[in-house]
Amino acid sequence: METQTFYYDKLYEFTIAVFTKMGCPAEEAASAAKVLLSADLRGVDSHGVARLSGYVRLWEAERVNAKPNIKIIHETPSTAVVDGDRGLGLVVAPVAMKIAIEKAKNVGTGWVSVQNSNHYGIAAVHAMMALEHDMIGLSMTNASPLVAPTFSISKMLGTNPICMAAPAGNQPPFVMDLATTTAANGKLEILQRKNEQAPDGWVQDVNGNPSNDANILKKGGALLPLGGDRDHGSHKGYALGAMVDIFSALLSGANYAPWVPPFPAYVPMPQKQPGKGIGHFFGAMRIDAFRPATEFKRDMDDWINGFRTAKTLPGHDKVLVPGDPEREMETERSKNGIPLLATVVADLKQVAGKLGIGWFLD
Amino acid sequence: METQTFYYDKLYEFTIAVFTKMGCPAEEAASAAKVLLSADLRGVDSHGVARLSGYVRLWEAERVNAKPNIKIIHETPSTAVVDGDRGLGLVVAPVAMKIAIEKAKNVGTGWVSVQNSNHYGIAAVHAMMALEHDMIGLSMTNASPLVAPTFSISKMLGTNPICMAAPAGNQPPFVMDLATTTAANGKLEILQRKNEQAPDGWVQDVNGNPSNDANILKKGGALLPLGGDRDHGSHKGYALGAMVDIFSALLSGANYAPWVPPFPAYVPMPQKQPGKGIGHFFGAMRIDAFRPATEFKRDMDDWINGFRTAKTLPGHDKVLVPGDPEREMETERSKNGIPLLATVVADLKQVAGKLGIGWFLD
Repeated sequence: METQTFYYDKLYEFTIAVFTKMGCPAEEAASAAKVLLSADLRGVDSHGVARLSGYVRLWEAERVNAKPNIKIIHETPSTAVVDGDRGLGLVVAPVAMKIAIEKAKNVGTGWVSVQNSNHYGIAAVHAMMALEHDMIGLSMTNASPLVAPTFSISKMLGTNPICMAAPAGNQPPFVMDLATTTAANGKLEILQRKNEQAPDGWVQDVNGNPSNDANILKKGGALLPLGGDRDHGSHKGYALGAMVDIFSALLSGANYAPWVPPFPAYVPMPQKQPGKGIGHFFGAMRIDAFRPATEFKRDMDDWINGFRTAKTLPGHDKVLVPGDPEREMETERSKNGIPLLATVVADLKQVAGKLGIGWFLD
Repeated sequence: METQTFYYDKLYEFTIAVFTKMGCPAEEAASAAKVLLSADLRGVDSHGVARLSGYVRLWEAERVNAKPNIKIIHETPSTAVVDGDRGLGLVVAPVAMKIAIEKAKNVGTGWVSVQNSNHYGIAAVHAMMALEHDMIGLSMTNASPLVAPTFSISKMLGTNPICMAAPAGNQPPFVMDLATTTAANGKLEILQRKNEQAPDGWVQDVNGNPSNDANILKKGGALLPLGGDRDHGSHKGYALGAMVDIFSALLSGANYAPWVPPFPAYVPMPQKQPGKGIGHFFGAMRIDAFRPATEFKRDMDDWINGFRTAKTLPGHDKVLVPGDPEREMETERSKNGIPLLATVVADLKQVAGKLGIGWFLD
């Protein structure tokens, strides 16, 4: 696969220029660029700058408001519902997470459900905002329907990710960030590019038959919930995805289940719209609302060490702790740059041309 | 499999008698019996009265304190840490969940982490306490190590369940209750009794090889995290189980990871004890801290209806909503009684004899 490598700073500057051209205020353009590119740094290529042209098309289709008036529409000491005013999720999410953190400072925890937003990039970057405050962070979002629940053919849920980030002491933080499907759509896209088959338990065809076709979603197929089938716990992946939908959309008044708006601007909006936009959910829990942070972090170090020194399967040299692969990738790419596929580069050049931004990345 | 059927009321009376003989105060004996038998009513036979003799043996071994002084050791408006004083988890958990509910009444949400407790029965019964208050309930617990994380042979985590219960309007509530493994240990026990093999992806042997032996845990094998292997997302099941451990034990100061005390009293306590007892985690979220409860419940009804009317796979007549199977079982068993295996009945008779309780169940 042909790639071209770009330094982070250049991509950051370019992404800010694009969001600024869309009409985003300077601070919001910078915030959105940082969130978007955190995906590229952490190796989640499907959610990063490869999607920039998609966000631009959503704005062109007037499905994204570049100057949103993001506001709290209801709150208690530990909760809030935020209206994202059709803004970029990349902009709305950090605002909502900050509110959760402020509430946690005051009463121990903060929980914010968001309506009327759009796609927010990777879940982890928002949850990780809590870490520097010695808090645990949580981040979830619903998404347009690609997943068939157990025993069904209908696509009823998005890949609805759950992220939890917890600080440690000498060890790096624990960061889990998982789609509630066997495999995220990005993993299928990688197989498509390589012209390879999907393993069993990832997807089914339009009639609900097991499939190994990595292109099956384009033919009416569906992703399967984590577990794959009933014997392997797919009802659990389905339930977890459902929980994310309830927290993100039922608590906020966003669209839910099969009625969540699509990311591609060319896909028509669902006819039924029971709520507003896409929904997210954020949590912040102050460690010392439970226990002195020094004690918690000491135990987290011990916990992480236990896993790092656990006996490995033959052929594996270490047991990973959630967050390890993404952190290693971030270190590598911060130093050596971010490789982008030739198709993504071409796409960015087209965006630059369309918006009248000089191409300064080569 | 030979079974004998008993009415709930009789089993309830008997279970109260046992806990009373152990020295539990009357109110706590009743609360513990209700929690324990909710498992039998809901069809989770592995966690119900079949475990009563195990709780008695823990008490005989002085690992359970029948008269605990359950107290809050730290709190903020939305959080608390509770010391269970080595009490039955069946007693400690409802006390902790009540504290979460009270905090939610005051500031919107309540979050309680528990140390120094014991096994608490099924996760669902505690979370469901929130429903009558128009709240969402959450319940998690850690447990003794049976699960090998991805790429490992070592048993590092328990089956660490997650339960979330949310109220609906005309529809029954949404109740998910799932072990973070492909299959819970109780499912293996069912296969053992039938002398059947386990499906792929449930367990591995002592050397980490895939296995279909339903008795493999007795031979040093391990349960696998939800997903089964890396290709099918076992790193996600592992991360979810880890999250439960962090919330339940790292936040409270309970034992964590492979150092969680065992349920069978004949198994020695782990040499290392980084905390106190077993840990739980509870949450209560007032719906109207986010949105009017009537609107939420209307949307939940619509959400549930969407799933109930989703297109089914050939050979299946309906798509289930989390909580459906257990609720149907509860209706059936409340009316027609609870079938117990002959081995369980013999076990209960032995407990009755040992404690000098007349056998009044036949």
